[in-house]
Amino acid sequence: MTTPKTNPWQTLQTTQVYDTPWISVSHHDVITPAGDEGIYGVVHYKNRAVGVIPYQDGMIWLVGQTRYPLDRYSWEIPEGGCPLGEDLQDCALRELKEETGISAGTLIPLFESHLSNSVSDEWGIVYLATELSFGQSNPEATEDITIRKVSLETFFEEVEAGQITDSLSVTACYKLMLMKSQGTL
Amino acid sequence: MTTPKTNPWQTLQTTQVYDTPWISVSHHDVITPAGDEGIYGVVHYKNRAVGVIPYQDGMIWLVGQTRYPLDRYSWEIPEGGCPLGEDLQDCALRELKEETGISAGTLIPLFESHLSNSVSDEWGIVYLATELSFGQSNPEATEDITIRKVSLETFFEEVEAGQITDSLSVTACYKLMLMKSQGTL
Repeated sequence: MTTPKTNPWQTLQTTQVYDTPWISVSHHDVITPAGDEGIYGVVHYKNRAVGVIPYQDGMIWLVGQTRYPLDRYSWEIPEGGCPLGEDLQDCALRELKEETGISAGTLIPLFESHLSNSVSDEWGIVYLATELSFGQSNPEATEDITIRKVSLETFFEEVEAGQITDSLSVTACYKLMLMKSQGTL
Repeated sequence: MTTPKTNPWQTLQTTQVYDTPWISVSHHDVITPAGDEGIYGVVHYKNRAVGVIPYQDGMIWLVGQTRYPLDRYSWEIPEGGCPLGEDLQDCALRELKEETGISAGTLIPLFESHLSNSVSDEWGIVYLATELSFGQSNPEATEDITIRKVSLETFFEEVEAGQITDSLSVTACYKLMLMKSQGTL
């Protein structure tokens, strides 16, 4: 596995075109790797995506909510945005507690990914949460969430049926099924 | 698995703030599910993401390229953008041929996902490509790609080590390893 040290893209000029508390969008005039003039629109994410999947006795917990950009309801593992100053594990524990009321004694990193690297710099990490204890949820005001406890196998069946499509959730599902199959879950 | 029929978000006004051949960005004034006034920035993707992972005799092929939004080199399964008018499987076969020179006799859908549903409507699908034949690659002018043939196990080790982070690639890797573990690959 070798990695070239030079970036073949040249940036001529960068202009910010949009900014919210969560993203900024910038327009770049570039020279492409082929040497041609071109443009590139880049979406910068101000938060890191953190997913956390609570697991106990073969069961997991999903949260359902309407995703505004899709205009549809989506069942997913508990997820949230982690501001740059916040510790990732603290954020995972906080989001899990807020959305499901569950506290976790142990977090195990499952995977990291860049979610959409042709357009954005969004990065995410997903943890497996174990040693669970159960309390009251306290979702953010913008979240109309519902909680559902299902077996890992049901989670897998719903992913395979295309009923669960959230990227971090799909990846987490396959990773957990692989770990179970290999005897490491 | 129940899905509420009503969307608790209300959209008051929508303004397009940026547009390229690949994405458009819109600003939305909204009423949140809690009843408060708020804003939402949404990134619309004009293409669907298509990944295709060629597999033969335990080996797969990866492509490496510099991802401009990340300013770093990224090893990934072959991927491309599929315009709305193009058939997904045609696009998968075309991208595979362009980037690696490989033609495939069979495509099997592995999974679908929404890649970043808190901000965008980006949707992707990944296929497993088999019955392979080998020719000359012909990448797009903007692509500075390198091809690498590795075992599925090496692919998995690089994902687990955080050396491969592209979302569709990570998910595809776990799905293939799960299929192998279950005897269905």
